Amino acid sequence: MKPLPPGITAAAFDRGLKSFEAVVGKDQLFVGDDDRAAYEDVYGPSMSPYHHPSAAVAPGSVEEVQAIVRAANEHRIPIWPISRGKNLGYGAAAPAMNGTVVVDLGRLNRILEIDVKRGYALLEPGVGFFDLYDYLEREKIPLWMSIAANAWGSVVGNALERGFGYTPYGDNASQICGIEAVLPDGGMFRTGMGAQTGNPTWNLFRPGFGPDWTGMLCQSNFGIVTKLGLWLEPEPQAAATVDVSLPNFEDIGWWIDTLAPLRLSRVLPSPPNTGNWLGVAAVASQRSQWTDSDAALTDQQIDAIRAKMGLGWWKTTLTFHGLEGAVEAQLKATLDAINNAGHADMKVTRWKRGDPPETALKARPTTLPLQMTNWYGGRGGHLGFSPIVPSDGKICLERIRKAKRRFEEADLDLYHSFTMGERYTTSIALITYDRDNAEMMDRVDKLFRHLVNDAREEGFGEYRTHLTYMDEVADCYDYNDHALRRLNEKLKDLIDPAGILAPGKQGVWPARYRGMRG
Amino acid sequence: MKPLPPGITAAAFDRGLKSFEAVVGKDQLFVGDDDRAAYEDVYGPSMSPYHHPSAAVAPGSVEEVQAIVRAANEHRIPIWPISRGKNLGYGAAAPAMNGTVVVDLGRLNRILEIDVKRGYALLEPGVGFFDLYDYLEREKIPLWMSIAANAWGSVVGNALERGFGYTPYGDNASQICGIEAVLPDGGMFRTGMGAQTGNPTWNLFRPGFGPDWTGMLCQSNFGIVTKLGLWLEPEPQAAATVDVSLPNFEDIGWWIDTLAPLRLSRVLPSPPNTGNWLGVAAVASQRSQWTDSDAALTDQQIDAIRAKMGLGWWKTTLTFHGLEGAVEAQLKATLDAINNAGHADMKVTRWKRGDPPETALKARPTTLPLQMTNWYGGRGGHLGFSPIVPSDGKICLERIRKAKRRFEEADLDLYHSFTMGERYTTSIALITYDRDNAEMMDRVDKLFRHLVNDAREEGFGEYRTHLTYMDEVADCYDYNDHALRRLNEKLKDLIDPAGILAPGKQGVWPARYRGMRG
Repeated sequence: MKPLPPGITAAAFDRGLKSFEAVVGKDQLFVGDDDRAAYEDVYGPSMSPYHHPSAAVAPGSVEEVQAIVRAANEHRIPIWPISRGKNLGYGAAAPAMNGTVVVDLGRLNRILEIDVKRGYALLEPGVGFFDLYDYLEREKIPLWMSIAANAWGSVVGNALERGFGYTPYGDNASQICGIEAVLPDGGMFRTGMGAQTGNPTWNLFRPGFGPDWTGMLCQSNFGIVTKLGLWLEPEPQAAATVDVSLPNFEDIGWWIDTLAPLRLSRVLPSPPNTGNWLGVAAVASQRSQWTDSDAALTDQQIDAIRAKMGLGWWKTTLTFHGLEGAVEAQLKATLDAINNAGHADMKVTRWKRGDPPETALKARPTTLPLQMTNWYGGRGGHLGFSPIVPSDGKICLERIRKAKRRFEEADLDLYHSFTMGERYTTSIALITYDRDNAEMMDRVDKLFRHLVNDAREEGFGEYRTHLTYMDEVADCYDYNDHALRRLNEKLKDLIDPAGILAPGKQGVWPARYRGMRG
Repeated sequence: MKPLPPGITAAAFDRGLKSFEAVVGKDQLFVGDDDRAAYEDVYGPSMSPYHHPSAAVAPGSVEEVQAIVRAANEHRIPIWPISRGKNLGYGAAAPAMNGTVVVDLGRLNRILEIDVKRGYALLEPGVGFFDLYDYLEREKIPLWMSIAANAWGSVVGNALERGFGYTPYGDNASQICGIEAVLPDGGMFRTGMGAQTGNPTWNLFRPGFGPDWTGMLCQSNFGIVTKLGLWLEPEPQAAATVDVSLPNFEDIGWWIDTLAPLRLSRVLPSPPNTGNWLGVAAVASQRSQWTDSDAALTDQQIDAIRAKMGLGWWKTTLTFHGLEGAVEAQLKATLDAINNAGHADMKVTRWKRGDPPETALKARPTTLPLQMTNWYGGRGGHLGFSPIVPSDGKICLERIRKAKRRFEEADLDLYHSFTMGERYTTSIALITYDRDNAEMMDRVDKLFRHLVNDAREEGFGEYRTHLTYMDEVADCYDYNDHALRRLNEKLKDLIDPAGILAPGKQGVWPARYRGMRG
């Protein structure tokens, strides 16, 4: 059955859909059950009754996006824009609130500009990681990308949601320079230097003159991004990678402490992602190959799997890009620091300009890691729990110990990784599950809420979360009687008085739907 | 005579001052003529009748800032917050609108936290570059600063106004991580992870969860910043500088084109500032030593001065920080690129950890460049004209040629420099003058307006400007019927309905004073 937006009658809803149809035509309005199913969160927690879209509409131009936003205001229809809808682990294409109409921007898929000399791309939201990668390869453009672990999605969407890659440009949101956005009233503006007609520095200098609204448009329901400038890395003279395996659970402590000063001083220029054995085992095998038991794998079972597959407890790749001499100096300092601190198995690979391009140590898009979701069988899915912590071995070890206990309580196998910025570390516990197993999904939900609360008690909060937990996570940001939430709501009500744009995203609800807050 | 804010009677104004006095006490409210004079723009264009403060008040705590903001709302008194009021060349301590009361945050001058391991400082706005530098030196803290050319001012204020230093951390606004701000209604909030009570990653990870309001608080009148986290550079293992002199005016073309790819690839990790001969000559001498004429110096005269002082046309310093091997590799690649491209006189200096600390190639605060303002004699002053342009030799050469013609038309001597980011260059024409010479000040004003219009015709706009020209510069940002200005005004009216906070800053006027727009 078609869910309706709260407070909207079926007749009013149909009038709204008609007005969308008048903008995009019949072919680009999707109202059937199969259509709706295509925009469900097929990886998320299946038990949620809250995130079901009522329809989808696919505009083919910025003007059509504006017209849809105006029609949504007129008919008070809530809309949920997606770039390609692959925000996997965080909600995919689905809206926060039942009955919201998905605005699918996938048809806006042009690479508008690539500037080799100045290292940027100007992209529409429908451009995927594969699209951009293929284009750069085909045209032999010497710019390298920072690519999300699962590269199914949109380059623009990933940057706006503050995703990560593992190169010197790995903090994707920091590479944003120049946004065009449709506002909730249907108006359109450009940030920074783009606010001047024809200014050629829109994608070179971010802030512009006066307040900069780039941050307002990230993880946000304050505008629909229709164009985005993204800095790309010029092909370096040389590159090296170190594939690392750490044998023991506890190794993560000294490992983080060893890398932290190297990251801070930029000796190690890229954010490394250090993940546990399950990241490999769950891609290469299914759980049923190893055990018939529903209980979480014991340490003994884990050791047996690791021995059989030749895996350490932790695995990572360190990536160096730059001048050959600089890479060698950084590599040596990094290897020396690691060897002085503890035992790690390491394999160094080198590349320099002139070597075969297919051996270049650059990021390449893949969807292989998604295979992890099949660990338990059934219709697999996953949820990421991703608080930000200081780059501190003791804190990270404590976090993973607590997470391990919580996963064991929930009888679920722990996948955990740490991605290190220059000063902070993103601590990511990934829960994989069988969505067809209602009893398991109940355990998943309890586990997730424990993880949020445990982190909160230590003063930590997530940088990003799944739709189902946005209110709970937003609630952690409670300083000065939730001053940030009050500011968000105040500005939201001004800029979106009808409350049509992505109600509930990141826990920001417009006045009209504030009662929906969980 | 005391200027009053527009639309405020003397009696109402006095009631407002009384309410401020009730907050801070008699000693911290400044209402005398001498007091007011201390907050005038003593370096700006003297002819402006618009930027005269009516009084100043100096709160001693965040709570007092909040109380002043609430009182300002109650009595509808416009206020203009300053950190230390040394925004020299852009307005110093003075407000945009006559009669505005300066809120002097100089008493909030605590260094609240220095984290050596994670490379940041948490600062109040009253902390000056000298204060922070002295503290780091005294406590032997191995963190290095990025310092403005004239280091008289506030570290926080400079970062918020998007000032520059010349180290790998030279883009000061990009180092901001974590802001506490008092809102125009007297409320207070913290950005990013600071929005969670006790979260220790406030100054490590900038965006937080949901929209990030950091950019809203830069060059802005949307809040009063009372605490700011700033990333500092860990002392590098080694450093090198190259002092460069370029003999000819035209050299700037190949110079920019040679450095641009080195900056983009981070082979040259710091933004170099390339300035012309007058930057040295005007510090070391006065104009009257060289000529009695009022006309702009001719090329022949300039050549004679340069010969006498042993100066090229352009001068800069390139700065490398990092591992010794990396610095050597980057230095060699840079010197090779320069030597392949043209002729430059270069002197290399090296430092590494263990060498005498007083020889460390780190930024040190100085006010010596301010001496430039005495070039013409009288009460000297200066104005910076600072559009953003692509890092492109042809464009930069064209800009400086046009600027030179405009300066010659105005019979003023041209000081010009270029600061190169990774992708853009800040093109800075600095006008120095004698504020006591009314006829000269008239020429200065005409010159400045020509510079704004010339840049605008080419599609360029300033990143920052003096109070007197904020409306004119803001007007350049005209895309889609001034969509950015309309957004700024819309949000301004919501967040500051009484229009009390810094009316006119960066051309953003609240509804109440919108008619003041120039």
